[in-house]
Amino acid sequence: MKEINVGLIGFGTVGTGVVRLLTENAGLIADKLGARLVMKRIADLDTTTDRGVVLPPGVLTNNVNDVLDDPEISIVIELIGGYEPARTFVLRALAAGKHLVTANKALLALHGDEIYAKAAEAGVEVLYEAAVGGGIPVLSAIKGNMAANRFTTILGILNGTCNYILTKMTKEGSDFGEVLTMAQELGYAEADPTFDIEGTDTAHKLALLLSLCFGTRVTFSDIYTEGITSISAIDVNFARQFGYKIKLLAIGKRDGDRLEARVHPTMIPIHYPMADVDGVFNAIRLTGDFVGPVMLYGRGAGMEPTASAVVGDLMDISRNILAGIGQRVSARGFREEAVAGLAIKPIGEIVSRYYLRFSALDQPGVLAAIAGSLGTNGISIESMIQTGRSGDSVPIVIITHEAAERDVRAALAEIDGFPMIREKSCFIRIEDNLE
Amino acid sequence: MKEINVGLIGFGTVGTGVVRLLTENAGLIADKLGARLVMKRIADLDTTTDRGVVLPPGVLTNNVNDVLDDPEISIVIELIGGYEPARTFVLRALAAGKHLVTANKALLALHGDEIYAKAAEAGVEVLYEAAVGGGIPVLSAIKGNMAANRFTTILGILNGTCNYILTKMTKEGSDFGEVLTMAQELGYAEADPTFDIEGTDTAHKLALLLSLCFGTRVTFSDIYTEGITSISAIDVNFARQFGYKIKLLAIGKRDGDRLEARVHPTMIPIHYPMADVDGVFNAIRLTGDFVGPVMLYGRGAGMEPTASAVVGDLMDISRNILAGIGQRVSARGFREEAVAGLAIKPIGEIVSRYYLRFSALDQPGVLAAIAGSLGTNGISIESMIQTGRSGDSVPIVIITHEAAERDVRAALAEIDGFPMIREKSCFIRIEDNLE
Repeated sequence: MKEINVGLIGFGTVGTGVVRLLTENAGLIADKLGARLVMKRIADLDTTTDRGVVLPPGVLTNNVNDVLDDPEISIVIELIGGYEPARTFVLRALAAGKHLVTANKALLALHGDEIYAKAAEAGVEVLYEAAVGGGIPVLSAIKGNMAANRFTTILGILNGTCNYILTKMTKEGSDFGEVLTMAQELGYAEADPTFDIEGTDTAHKLALLLSLCFGTRVTFSDIYTEGITSISAIDVNFARQFGYKIKLLAIGKRDGDRLEARVHPTMIPIHYPMADVDGVFNAIRLTGDFVGPVMLYGRGAGMEPTASAVVGDLMDISRNILAGIGQRVSARGFREEAVAGLAIKPIGEIVSRYYLRFSALDQPGVLAAIAGSLGTNGISIESMIQTGRSGDSVPIVIITHEAAERDVRAALAEIDGFPMIREKSCFIRIEDNLE
Repeated sequence: MKEINVGLIGFGTVGTGVVRLLTENAGLIADKLGARLVMKRIADLDTTTDRGVVLPPGVLTNNVNDVLDDPEISIVIELIGGYEPARTFVLRALAAGKHLVTANKALLALHGDEIYAKAAEAGVEVLYEAAVGGGIPVLSAIKGNMAANRFTTILGILNGTCNYILTKMTKEGSDFGEVLTMAQELGYAEADPTFDIEGTDTAHKLALLLSLCFGTRVTFSDIYTEGITSISAIDVNFARQFGYKIKLLAIGKRDGDRLEARVHPTMIPIHYPMADVDGVFNAIRLTGDFVGPVMLYGRGAGMEPTASAVVGDLMDISRNILAGIGQRVSARGFREEAVAGLAIKPIGEIVSRYYLRFSALDQPGVLAAIAGSLGTNGISIESMIQTGRSGDSVPIVIITHEAAERDVRAALAEIDGFPMIREKSCFIRIEDNLE
């Protein structure tokens, strides 16, 4: 039986999962491909730690050149993460005519253009299913069977750490800080969780989804990003009273020739299927002009689901190699010359419904002042809750009709200057008008 | 720009959607493929009805040979449905070296082996994404990025008519008959709805999912099939009291070298994401050994979603044609020689929890007699509700622990013979122990 040689750079958790999967399901993979996938070389600086998998002698090396310079290796898997030296290794692999599989969302969100152009030039594939949604086959769906659609909306729950924290806060009424500490103890959050909880990881992933859905050059610095650190138990609780759950959503929308591209905590109706995406699960909801809404749901991280995506990519490329062809589908699914640079709509111009929470002194006229400021800024109120005082202030919660964000921010700046307002007002966008 | 010629057999609703999609998104498709998809000939017996789309002169014909014998047509789309003459046309197209795209689940569920073998022999692709789940890209996910997994479980809500009826019954407490009548008036159910409500359509689709997930020859007559006609409002209501919703599920499970393959009304916990799949939406939940559970959700029927799947398949095949290759992936994703014939586990051997409802005279000893029969058949009771009498009988509802179906059937046969039992007892399987 034919053999296809694969090289791996970065032998951490996911890399170990890839080796396990290639070993445990070798027969199944051969039954499908009619060829064996052989892990020929694995490069990692650490060649001594026991990963719990047995490798033939000579496979593991601490010299990346053993992978990059081996002419028998057709596909290189990059799993070291980060910008450098990953970028250098990846470009060298492509220049050597090797196909690339990577899970490195940060690298592609920043250096995608350069990498995709190099792959097109070399006539090889770049696949990165594992970079978004772990094992969920969403990128291949966008480039594959959904490719005939003009996409209009992307909504994603893309970070397991954030979703775990928000789920716990929702179920237990706990505050952000205590849940984060627990998540760290359980291994669901990193010791330094900044990257996750500030929304950066989600923005990286949204950048990749946008580039595939809209055929555009977008880097993650174009994406408006708010994390979940300012979400409090009181907002989670009010959300429930209004029939919503709070999720950290990645949102991409096409509006003519411009894109909305934003990551922020968002209230969604509890009866939406996405509202049931709990814990470390991820989900991506895509709307196409013909297919309508499609949601994909699954484990967004972890050794085994991520290995599933990586090996799925290996098999896809192997089918090309076996058929004797090079690049069959470009990295974004669009021919390089058709890729555009769509403008990003400034956050102030987005239109949404808003949840607003004010903390005010319990005095006559407070509500009139708040409502007045909203009114003069063109924001109309859909519903309101004022509950009992806590300490010397009362929370006033308002759900608005659709309003432009710039108007909401102007009203809040004005209201926060009122003497009876006790602390900075809070606002959360609502997404409940889905096609 | 290169052109790829496509021929269509069957110009009904979906065919019209395909023509609309190829026209409206022609630019997008060309931006991705670097080629234009040209609908060269369309064959239908009805060449006069206005479908609301404009075709160039000479495209529409009432002679199928104009499609099948045209050497310039590379891909044939079959959308006439049913067994014959679809089978004959499809086999002729393959024999002529044309790739095939079809939405015909009945044809493939019965004649798949013959058609797939012919395609392998001719070195062409057979794609049928539109046959299961409308626009949901589930078949391409199984054959594509999820291909490295050993699948263990398939659960599907695959028939929009049934799901619409069950959703209405759940939301409104109405009985089956009245909801069916309403669904027919609204066009959600056919004038003769047998095929849908008896589960046949769902079983066809499950046959295709089983063959792709497990690389097995399975025809829909192997599948145990119960429809939704005997579901009553009282069961929907009791389900809710126990925390369940009733859905018509397609279930496939691997158990060693045997498969469970069954379609029947099933109770699932209301907090499962699948429980929120309402109305005409479809969902498929697949569990792979590495990826874990993945759910795909979307519109399971309709002109536009189905056209999305068909044109997605056309684009996939077009990428092969442009690369100069024939069959890249076999029809099941497994090489023909690796396809096995896994045995189907008899329904009596499946193990499940059960909802049982008895209609009994309100007499002393009734419950003891029922519980006694369950006990002697090895079935243990998890919970029970006995409510007030309706007429001269009382409903007794029992949820069992896991039991073999043969034992449940034996107990029910015994209990239905008791003089105090007023009507045939009802049982519904429960699926709430998902990996």
